[in-house]
Amino acid sequence: MKLKVYVDRLSQPSRAILIFLKANGIEFEEVKIDIVKRQHKSPEFKKINPMGQVPAISDGRFNLFESHAILTYLACAFPGVADSWYPSDLFARAKINSVLDWHHSNLRRGAATYVLHTVLAPVLGLPSNPQAAAEAETLLSSSLSTIESIWLKGNGKFLLGGFRPSIADLSLVCEIMQLELLEEKDRSRILDPHAKVLQWIENTKNATRPHFHEVHDVLYRAKTRFQEQRLKRASNKTDSSDRLALPSKM
Amino acid sequence: MKLKVYVDRLSQPSRAILIFLKANGIEFEEVKIDIVKRQHKSPEFKKINPMGQVPAISDGRFNLFESHAILTYLACAFPGVADSWYPSDLFARAKINSVLDWHHSNLRRGAATYVLHTVLAPVLGLPSNPQAAAEAETLLSSSLSTIESIWLKGNGKFLLGGFRPSIADLSLVCEIMQLELLEEKDRSRILDPHAKVLQWIENTKNATRPHFHEVHDVLYRAKTRFQEQRLKRASNKTDSSDRLALPSKM
Repeated sequence: MKLKVYVDRLSQPSRAILIFLKANGIEFEEVKIDIVKRQHKSPEFKKINPMGQVPAISDGRFNLFESHAILTYLACAFPGVADSWYPSDLFARAKINSVLDWHHSNLRRGAATYVLHTVLAPVLGLPSNPQAAAEAETLLSSSLSTIESIWLKGNGKFLLGGFRPSIADLSLVCEIMQLELLEEKDRSRILDPHAKVLQWIENTKNATRPHFHEVHDVLYRAKTRFQEQRLKRASNKTDSSDRLALPSKM
Repeated sequence: MKLKVYVDRLSQPSRAILIFLKANGIEFEEVKIDIVKRQHKSPEFKKINPMGQVPAISDGRFNLFESHAILTYLACAFPGVADSWYPSDLFARAKINSVLDWHHSNLRRGAATYVLHTVLAPVLGLPSNPQAAAEAETLLSSSLSTIESIWLKGNGKFLLGGFRPSIADLSLVCEIMQLELLEEKDRSRILDPHAKVLQWIENTKNATRPHFHEVHDVLYRAKTRFQEQRLKRASNKTDSSDRLALPSKM
Protein backbone atom coordinates (compact mmCIF):
# COMPACT_ATOMS: atom_id res chain seq x y z
CA MET A 1 0.00 0.00 0.00
CA LYS A 2 1.19 3.51 -0.85
CA LEU A 3 2.57 5.61 1.97
CA LYS A 4 -0.11 7.92 3.37
CA VAL A 5 1.06 11.13 4.98
CA TYR A 6 -1.42 12.87 7.29
CA VAL A 7 -0.63 16.57 7.48
CA ASP A 8 -1.89 20.12 7.68
CA ARG A 9 0.46 22.43 5.79
CA LEU A 10 -0.17 25.07 8.46
CA SER A 11 1.75 22.83 10.90
CA GLN A 12 5.51 23.32 10.75
CA PRO A 13 6.53 19.66 11.32
CA SER A 14 4.01 18.65 8.64
CA ARG A 15 5.79 20.95 6.20
CA ALA A 16 9.21 19.52 7.09
CA ILE A 17 8.03 16.00 6.25
CA LEU A 18 6.39 17.01 2.97
CA ILE A 19 9.55 18.82 1.82
CA PHE A 20 11.70 15.84 2.77
CA LEU A 21 9.48 13.43 0.82
CA LYS A 22 9.37 15.65 -2.26
CA ALA A 23 13.09 16.49 -2.19
CA ASN A 24 13.89 12.77 -2.11
CA GLY A 25 11.37 11.66 -4.71
CA ILE A 26 9.52 9.35 -2.32
CA GLU A 27 6.03 8.46 -3.56
CA PHE A 28 3.22 9.24 -1.13
CA GLU A 29 -0.38 10.31 -0.82
CA GLU A 30 -0.98 13.54 1.12
CA VAL A 31 -4.05 13.35 3.35
CA LYS A 32 -5.10 16.73 4.73
CA ILE A 33 -6.14 16.72 8.37
CA ASP A 34 -7.63 20.17 8.92
CA ILE A 35 -6.53 21.45 12.33
CA VAL A 36 -8.89 24.43 12.34
CA LYS A 37 -11.80 21.99 11.76
CA ARG A 38 -10.32 19.82 14.55
CA GLN A 39 -10.05 16.79 12.26
CA HIS A 40 -6.92 15.77 14.16
CA LYS A 41 -9.12 14.98 17.16
CA SER A 42 -11.60 12.80 15.22
CA PRO A 43 -11.98 9.12 16.26
CA GLU A 44 -11.07 8.11 12.71
CA PHE A 45 -7.74 9.95 12.72
CA LYS A 46 -6.97 8.77 16.25
CA LYS A 47 -6.81 5.23 14.81
CA ILE A 48 -3.72 6.48 12.91
CA ASN A 49 -2.34 8.68 15.69
CA PRO A 50 -3.89 8.14 19.12
CA MET A 51 -2.26 11.42 20.26
CA GLY A 52 -4.50 13.34 17.85
CA GLN A 53 -1.69 15.35 16.24
CA VAL A 54 -0.26 15.87 12.79
CA PRO A 55 1.96 14.80 11.14
CA ALA A 56 1.55 11.03 11.06
CA ILE A 57 2.30 8.39 8.44
CA SER A 58 0.83 4.99 7.61
CA ASP A 59 1.48 2.28 5.06
CA GLY A 60 -1.67 0.43 6.10
CA ARG A 61 0.09 -1.83 8.63
CA PHE A 62 2.66 0.43 10.24
CA ASN A 63 1.61 3.80 11.70
CA LEU A 64 4.05 6.37 13.08
CA PHE A 65 3.84 9.81 14.64
CA GLU A 66 6.26 12.43 16.03
CA SER A 67 7.95 14.31 13.21
CA HIS A 68 11.57 13.56 14.15
CA ALA A 69 10.84 9.84 14.41
CA ILE A 70 9.11 10.03 11.02
CA LEU A 71 12.05 11.85 9.39
CA THR A 72 14.63 9.39 10.70
CA TYR A 73 12.44 6.45 9.67
CA LEU A 74 11.93 7.81 6.15
CA ALA A 75 15.64 8.56 5.75
CA CYS A 76 16.55 4.97 6.76
CA ALA A 77 13.69 3.06 5.13
CA PHE A 78 13.61 4.49 1.62
CA PRO A 79 16.38 3.76 -0.86
CA GLY A 80 17.82 6.70 -2.75
CA VAL A 81 17.85 9.17 0.14
CA ALA A 82 21.25 10.91 0.13
CA ASP A 83 23.33 9.93 3.17
CA SER A 84 23.80 13.59 4.12
CA TRP A 85 20.15 13.84 5.23
CA TYR A 86 20.82 11.43 8.11
CA PRO A 87 24.36 10.05 7.90
CA SER A 88 24.96 6.37 8.58
CA ASP A 89 28.23 7.34 10.31
CA LEU A 90 27.51 6.87 14.02
CA PHE A 91 29.25 10.05 15.18
CA ALA A 92 27.58 12.29 12.60
CA ARG A 93 24.19 10.69 13.26
CA ALA A 94 24.58 11.15 17.02
CA LYS A 95 25.27 14.87 16.55
CA ILE A 96 22.13 15.26 14.41
CA ASN A 97 20.10 13.40 17.03
CA SER A 98 21.49 15.80 19.64
CA VAL A 99 20.26 18.82 17.66
CA LEU A 100 16.84 17.23 17.16
CA ASP A 101 16.50 16.41 20.87
CA TRP A 102 17.57 19.93 21.84
CA HIS A 103 14.95 21.35 19.47
CA HIS A 104 11.96 20.05 21.49
CA SER A 105 12.44 22.02 24.68
CA ASN A 106 14.14 25.07 23.17
CA LEU A 107 13.46 26.34 19.66
CA ARG A 108 10.14 24.49 19.24
CA ARG A 109 8.82 25.43 22.64
CA GLY A 110 9.84 29.08 22.20
CA ALA A 111 8.60 29.54 18.64
CA ALA A 112 5.36 27.57 18.87
CA THR A 113 4.36 29.11 22.21
CA TYR A 114 5.13 32.63 21.00
CA VAL A 115 3.14 32.26 17.78
CA LEU A 116 0.26 30.65 19.68
CA HIS A 117 -0.04 33.45 22.22
CA THR A 118 0.32 36.28 19.72
CA VAL A 119 -1.25 35.28 16.39
CA LEU A 120 -2.98 31.91 16.58
CA ALA A 121 -4.92 32.01 19.86
CA PRO A 122 -7.42 34.63 18.60
CA VAL A 123 -7.92 32.63 15.39
CA LEU A 124 -8.46 29.35 17.22
CA GLY A 125 -10.70 30.94 19.86
CA LEU A 126 -8.17 30.23 22.62
CA PRO A 127 -7.10 32.66 25.39
CA SER A 128 -3.87 34.63 24.76
CA ASN A 129 -1.47 34.98 27.66
CA PRO A 130 0.89 37.98 27.32
CA GLN A 131 3.21 36.68 30.06
CA ALA A 132 3.50 33.30 28.32
CA ALA A 133 4.25 35.16 25.07
CA ALA A 134 7.01 37.21 26.77
CA GLU A 135 8.62 34.11 28.32
CA ALA A 136 8.39 32.30 24.98
CA GLU A 137 10.11 35.20 23.21
CA THR A 138 12.99 35.00 25.69
CA LEU A 139 13.36 31.25 25.04
CA LEU A 140 13.03 31.73 21.28
CA SER A 141 15.69 34.45 21.19
CA SER A 142 18.12 32.47 23.31
CA SER A 143 17.51 29.43 21.08
CA LEU A 144 18.35 31.47 17.98
CA SER A 145 21.54 32.68 19.69
CA THR A 146 22.44 29.08 20.52
CA ILE A 147 21.90 28.02 16.91
CA GLU A 148 24.30 30.75 15.79
CA SER A 149 26.98 30.24 18.42
CA ILE A 150 26.96 26.44 18.59
CA TRP A 151 25.24 24.68 15.72
CA LEU A 152 26.22 27.18 13.00
CA LYS A 153 29.76 27.71 14.33
CA GLY A 154 32.33 27.19 11.58
CA ASN A 155 32.30 27.57 7.83
CA GLY A 156 29.56 25.18 6.75
CA LYS A 157 26.33 26.31 5.13
CA PHE A 158 24.23 24.14 7.42
CA LEU A 159 24.05 22.98 11.05
CA LEU A 160 27.08 21.16 12.45
CA GLY A 161 29.28 22.55 9.71
CA GLY A 162 27.54 20.62 6.94
CA PHE A 163 27.68 21.49 3.27
CA ARG A 164 24.37 19.77 2.56
CA PRO A 165 21.20 19.97 4.65
CA SER A 166 20.27 17.22 7.10
CA ILE A 167 16.87 16.44 8.57
CA ALA A 168 17.86 18.71 11.49
CA ASP A 169 18.21 21.72 9.16
CA LEU A 170 14.82 20.99 7.66
CA SER A 171 13.06 20.52 10.98
CA LEU A 172 14.51 23.63 12.63
CA VAL A 173 14.13 25.93 9.62
CA CYS A 174 10.48 24.89 9.20
CA GLU A 175 9.96 25.72 12.88
CA ILE A 176 11.34 29.21 12.39
CA MET A 177 9.28 29.75 9.24
CA GLN A 178 6.08 29.99 11.30
CA LEU A 179 7.33 33.43 12.41
CA GLU A 180 6.16 34.60 8.96
CA LEU A 181 2.69 34.87 10.53
CA LEU A 182 3.79 37.55 13.01
CA GLU A 183 3.45 41.28 12.62
CA GLU A 184 6.51 42.51 10.74
CA LYS A 185 7.82 44.55 13.69
CA ASP A 186 7.73 41.47 15.97
CA ARG A 187 9.33 39.21 13.38
CA SER A 188 12.11 41.74 12.74
CA ARG A 189 12.77 42.28 16.43
CA ILE A 190 13.21 38.54 16.96
CA LEU A 191 15.02 37.47 13.78
CA ASP A 192 17.05 40.47 12.59
CA PRO A 193 19.75 40.21 15.30
CA HIS A 194 20.64 36.76 13.91
CA ALA A 195 22.29 37.26 10.51
CA LYS A 196 23.75 33.75 10.44
CA VAL A 197 20.34 32.24 11.10
CA LEU A 198 18.83 34.30 8.26
CA GLN A 199 21.56 33.12 5.87
CA TRP A 200 21.07 29.49 6.96
CA ILE A 201 17.31 29.75 6.30
CA GLU A 202 18.11 30.98 2.76
CA ASN A 203 20.61 28.13 2.30
CA THR A 204 17.97 25.58 3.31
CA LYS A 205 15.35 27.12 1.03
CA ASN A 206 17.79 27.04 -1.90
CA ALA A 207 18.86 23.46 -1.24
CA THR A 208 15.26 22.22 -1.27
CA ARG A 209 13.75 24.35 -4.03
CA PRO A 210 11.18 24.32 -5.50
CA HIS A 211 9.59 22.15 -2.82
CA PHE A 212 10.29 24.49 0.08
CA HIS A 213 8.31 27.34 -1.47
CA GLU A 214 5.54 25.15 -2.82
CA VAL A 215 4.90 23.56 0.59
CA HIS A 216 5.07 26.94 2.35
CA ASP A 217 2.58 28.57 -0.04
CA VAL A 218 -0.28 28.04 2.44
CA LEU A 219 1.75 29.85 5.11
CA TYR A 220 2.53 32.78 2.82
CA ARG A 221 -1.17 33.13 1.97
CA ALA A 222 -2.13 33.00 5.64
CA LYS A 223 0.46 35.71 6.28
CA THR A 224 -1.07 37.98 3.61
CA ARG A 225 -4.56 37.42 4.97
CA PHE A 226 -3.43 38.19 8.53
CA GLN A 227 -1.78 41.42 7.36
CA GLU A 228 -4.95 42.51 5.53
CA GLN A 229 -7.06 41.76 8.57
CA ARG A 230 -4.74 43.73 10.85
CA LEU A 231 -4.99 46.75 8.55
CA LYS A 232 -8.76 46.42 8.44
CA ARG A 233 -8.97 46.10 12.20
CA ALA A 234 -6.74 49.15 12.70
CA SER A 235 -8.99 51.26 10.45
CA ASN A 236 -12.20 50.04 12.07
CA LYS A 237 -11.50 49.67 15.75
CA THR A 238 -15.15 50.01 16.72
CA ASP A 239 -16.14 46.69 15.15
CA SER A 240 -15.43 44.29 17.98
CA SER A 241 -16.54 41.25 15.98
CA ASP A 242 -13.65 41.63 13.56
CA ARG A 243 -10.96 39.23 14.55
CA LEU A 244 -8.19 37.50 12.61
CA ALA A 245 -9.26 34.50 10.59
CA LEU A 246 -7.32 31.97 8.60
CA PRO A 247 -7.68 32.11 4.82
CA SER A 248 -10.90 30.36 3.80
CA LYS A 249 -9.30 28.66 0.84
CA MET A 250 -5.96 27.02 1.56
CA MET B 1 40.82 7.09 25.80
CA LYS B 2 38.27 5.73 28.24
CA LEU B 3 34.71 7.00 27.93
CA LYS B 4 34.06 9.83 30.38
CA VAL B 5 30.51 10.35 31.52
CA TYR B 6 29.67 13.73 33.05
CA VAL B 7 26.71 13.41 35.38
CA ASP B 8 25.02 14.44 38.57
CA ARG B 9 23.06 11.51 40.00
CA LEU B 10 20.39 13.98 41.15
CA SER B 11 19.55 14.54 37.45
CA GLN B 12 17.14 11.96 36.06
CA PRO B 13 18.66 11.68 32.54
CA SER B 14 22.10 11.27 34.18
CA ARG B 15 20.74 8.30 36.11
CA ALA B 16 19.27 6.72 32.97
CA ILE B 17 22.66 6.80 31.26
CA LEU B 18 24.56 5.41 34.25
CA ILE B 19 22.10 2.51 34.59
CA PHE B 20 22.35 1.77 30.86
CA LEU B 21 26.16 1.71 30.98
CA LYS B 22 26.28 -0.51 34.05
CA ALA B 23 23.54 -2.87 32.84
CA ASN B 24 25.47 -3.38 29.61
CA GLY B 25 28.92 -3.73 31.14
CA ILE B 26 30.34 -0.74 29.25
CA GLU B 27 33.54 0.59 30.81
CA PHE B 28 33.46 4.28 31.70
CA GLU B 29 34.69 6.88 34.15
CA GLU B 30 31.98 8.78 36.03
CA VAL B 31 32.80 12.49 36.41
CA LYS B 32 30.53 14.26 38.87
CA ILE B 33 29.35 17.69 37.78
CA ASP B 34 27.69 19.13 40.87
CA ILE B 35 24.55 21.01 39.82
CA VAL B 36 23.96 22.61 43.23
CA LYS B 37 27.51 24.03 43.06
CA ARG B 38 26.74 25.16 39.48
CA GLN B 39 29.69 23.20 38.06
CA HIS B 40 27.59 22.58 34.91
CA LYS B 41 27.93 26.29 34.10
CA SER B 42 31.74 26.40 34.48
CA PRO B 43 33.85 27.38 31.44
CA GLU B 44 35.73 24.08 31.78
CA PHE B 45 32.60 21.94 31.54
CA LYS B 46 31.22 24.08 28.73
CA LYS B 47 34.12 22.83 26.62
CA ILE B 48 32.46 19.39 26.88
CA ASN B 49 28.86 20.62 26.65
CA PRO B 50 28.43 24.24 25.52
CA MET B 51 24.79 24.08 26.70
CA GLY B 52 26.00 23.73 30.30
CA GLN B 53 23.84 20.72 31.14
CA VAL B 54 24.34 17.16 32.34
CA PRO B 55 24.56 14.46 31.17
CA ALA B 56 27.31 14.62 28.55
CA ILE B 57 29.90 12.10 27.33
CA SER B 58 33.37 12.39 25.84
CA ASP B 59 36.02 9.99 24.61
CA GLY B 60 38.53 12.82 24.28
CA ARG B 61 37.75 13.56 20.62
CA PHE B 62 34.02 13.12 20.35
CA ASN B 63 31.70 14.95 22.77
CA LEU B 64 27.95 14.43 22.92
CA PHE B 65 25.05 15.81 24.96
CA GLU B 66 21.26 15.31 25.15
CA SER B 67 20.43 12.10 26.97
CA HIS B 68 18.36 10.43 24.24
CA ALA B 69 21.09 11.05 21.66
CA ILE B 70 23.62 9.62 24.13
CA LEU B 71 21.53 6.50 24.80
CA THR B 72 21.00 5.75 21.09
CA TYR B 73 24.69 6.37 20.40
CA LEU B 74 25.83 4.05 23.20
CA ALA B 75 23.38 1.34 22.12
CA CYS B 76 24.70 1.47 18.54
CA ALA B 77 28.41 2.07 19.20
CA PHE B 78 29.23 -0.51 21.87
CA PRO B 79 29.31 -4.21 21.02
CA GLY B 80 27.47 -6.53 23.37
CA VAL B 81 24.44 -4.32 23.97
CA ALA B 82 21.34 -6.55 23.62
CA ASP B 83 19.30 -5.63 20.54
CA SER B 84 16.16 -5.15 22.67
CA TRP B 85 17.58 -1.93 24.16
CA TYR B 86 17.35 -0.22 20.74
CA PRO B 87 16.32 -2.72 18.06
CA SER B 88 18.05 -2.66 14.70
CA ASP B 89 14.69 -3.47 13.09
CA LEU B 90 13.59 -0.19 11.46
CA PHE B 91 9.94 -0.40 12.52
CA ALA B 92 10.69 -1.24 16.15
CA ARG B 93 13.38 1.46 16.30
CA ALA B 94 11.03 4.06 14.82
CA LYS B 95 8.42 3.31 17.50
CA ILE B 96 11.03 3.74 20.26
CA ASN B 97 12.14 7.04 18.70
CA SER B 98 8.50 8.12 18.69
CA VAL B 99 8.19 7.48 22.45
CA LEU B 100 11.46 9.32 23.13
CA ASP B 101 10.37 12.31 21.05
CA TRP B 102 6.98 12.41 22.77
CA HIS B 103 8.74 12.34 26.16
CA HIS B 104 10.32 15.81 25.76
CA SER B 105 7.19 17.95 25.61
CA ASN B 106 4.96 15.75 27.75
CA LEU B 107 6.23 13.53 30.58
CA ARG B 108 9.57 15.36 30.98
CA ARG B 109 8.06 18.82 30.86
CA GLY B 110 5.29 17.88 33.29
CA ALA B 111 7.44 15.99 35.80
CA ALA B 112 10.49 18.27 35.80
CA THR B 113 8.43 21.47 35.99
CA TYR B 114 6.25 20.10 38.81
CA VAL B 115 9.23 18.97 40.91
CA LEU B 116 11.03 22.26 40.26
CA HIS B 117 8.12 24.42 41.42
CA THR B 118 7.28 22.34 44.48
CA VAL B 119 10.46 20.84 45.94
CA LEU B 120 13.58 22.07 44.14
CA ALA B 121 13.03 25.82 43.72
CA PRO B 122 13.38 26.55 47.47
CA VAL B 123 16.57 24.42 47.61
CA LEU B 124 18.12 26.11 44.60
CA GLY B 125 17.08 29.61 45.72
CA LEU B 126 14.72 30.00 42.77
CA PRO B 127 11.18 31.41 42.87
CA SER B 128 8.32 28.85 43.06
CA ASN B 129 5.29 29.48 40.88
CA PRO B 130 2.13 27.73 42.15
CA GLN B 131 0.31 28.26 38.84
CA ALA B 132 3.19 26.69 36.91
CA ALA B 133 3.13 23.78 39.38
CA ALA B 134 -0.62 23.29 38.83
CA GLU B 135 -0.28 23.36 35.02
CA ALA B 136 2.67 20.96 35.23
CA GLU B 137 0.63 18.55 37.36
CA THR B 138 -2.11 18.53 34.72
CA LEU B 139 0.44 17.74 31.98
CA LEU B 140 2.16 15.12 34.15
CA SER B 141 -1.12 13.35 34.96
CA SER B 142 -2.27 13.34 31.34
CA SER B 143 1.18 12.01 30.31
CA LEU B 144 0.87 9.15 32.81
CA SER B 145 -2.61 8.37 31.42
CA THR B 146 -1.17 8.37 27.89
CA ILE B 147 1.60 5.97 28.93
CA GLU B 148 -1.03 3.59 30.31
CA SER B 149 -3.54 3.80 27.48
CA ILE B 150 -1.11 3.90 24.53
CA TRP B 151 2.44 2.83 25.29
CA LEU B 152 1.56 0.17 27.89
CA LYS B 153 -1.49 -1.15 26.00
CA GLY B 154 -1.31 -4.90 25.53
CA ASN B 155 0.29 -7.70 27.47
CA GLY B 156 3.97 -6.76 27.46
CA LYS B 157 5.88 -5.86 30.61
CA PHE B 158 7.41 -2.79 29.00
CA LEU B 159 6.50 0.06 26.62
CA LEU B 160 5.27 -0.88 23.15
CA GLY B 161 4.41 -4.40 24.33
CA GLY B 162 8.05 -5.36 24.93
CA PHE B 163 9.16 -8.23 27.13
CA ARG B 164 12.56 -6.63 27.75
CA PRO B 165 13.25 -2.96 28.54
CA SER B 166 14.37 -0.54 25.84
CA ILE B 167 16.14 2.79 26.26
CA ALA B 168 12.66 4.38 26.24
CA ASP B 169 11.62 2.44 29.35
CA LEU B 170 14.79 3.50 31.12
CA SER B 171 14.49 7.17 30.16
CA LEU B 172 10.82 7.51 31.08
CA VAL B 173 11.00 5.52 34.32
CA CYS B 174 14.00 7.57 35.50
CA GLU B 175 11.97 10.71 34.77
CA ILE B 176 9.11 9.48 36.95
CA MET B 177 11.49 8.45 39.75
CA GLN B 178 12.18 12.10 40.58
CA LEU B 179 8.67 12.18 42.08
CA GLU B 180 10.25 10.35 45.05
CA LEU B 181 11.32 13.81 46.25
CA LEU B 182 7.72 15.02 46.65
CA GLU B 183 5.67 15.00 49.82
CA GLU B 184 4.00 11.59 50.07
CA LYS B 185 0.48 13.00 49.68
CA ASP B 186 1.44 14.73 46.41
CA ARG B 187 3.25 11.69 45.05
CA SER B 188 0.30 9.43 45.90
CA ARG B 189 -2.25 11.79 44.37
CA ILE B 190 -0.30 11.84 41.09
CA LEU B 191 0.90 8.23 40.80
CA ASP B 192 -1.64 6.05 42.60
CA PRO B 193 -4.35 6.34 39.91
CA HIS B 194 -1.94 4.65 37.46
CA ALA B 195 -1.58 1.01 38.53
CA LYS B 196 -0.09 -0.05 35.18
CA VAL B 197 2.58 2.66 35.42
CA LEU B 198 3.47 1.53 38.96
CA GLN B 199 3.82 -2.09 37.77
CA TRP B 200 5.96 -0.99 34.80
CA ILE B 201 8.28 0.98 37.11
CA GLU B 202 8.74 -2.20 39.19
CA ASN B 203 9.39 -4.24 36.03
CA THR B 204 12.09 -1.78 34.93
CA LYS B 205 13.71 -1.77 38.38
CA ASN B 206 13.76 -5.57 38.41
CA ALA B 207 15.17 -5.83 34.89
CA THR B 208 18.08 -3.50 35.73
CA ARG B 209 18.90 -4.58 39.29
CA PRO B 210 21.14 -4.03 41.16
CA HIS B 211 22.16 -0.98 39.09
CA PHE B 212 18.82 0.80 39.28
CA HIS B 213 18.84 0.96 43.06
CA GLU B 214 22.54 1.72 43.35
CA VAL B 215 22.29 4.69 40.95
CA HIS B 216 19.13 5.97 42.68
CA ASP B 217 20.66 5.81 46.17
CA VAL B 218 21.45 9.54 46.07
CA LEU B 219 17.80 10.26 45.29
CA TYR B 220 16.54 8.06 48.14
CA ARG B 221 18.88 9.85 50.56
CA ALA B 222 17.70 13.24 49.33
CA LYS B 223 14.13 12.07 49.82
CA THR B 224 14.82 11.08 53.45
CA ARG B 225 16.54 14.39 54.13
CA PHE B 226 13.66 16.35 52.61
CA GLN B 227 11.16 14.44 54.75
CA GLU B 228 13.16 15.15 57.91
CA GLN B 229 13.38 18.83 57.05
CA ARG B 230 9.65 19.05 56.39
CA LEU B 231 8.95 17.52 59.80
CA LYS B 232 11.39 19.92 61.45
CA ARG B 233 9.86 22.86 59.65
CA ALA B 234 6.34 21.81 60.64
CA SER B 235 7.34 21.62 64.32
CA ASN B 236 9.18 24.95 64.25
CA LYS B 237 7.20 27.25 62.01
CA THR B 238 8.55 30.39 63.61
CA ASP B 239 12.09 29.86 62.30
CA SER B 240 11.87 31.49 58.87
CA SER B 241 15.48 30.64 57.99
CA ASP B 242 14.77 26.92 57.97
CA ARG B 243 14.37 25.86 54.38
CA LEU B 244 14.86 22.57 52.61
CA ALA B 245 18.45 21.72 51.75
CA LEU B 246 19.96 18.90 49.76
CA PRO B 247 21.91 16.29 51.72
CA SER B 248 25.41 17.58 52.38
CA LYS B 249 27.02 14.23 51.58
CA MET B 250 25.77 12.64 48.40
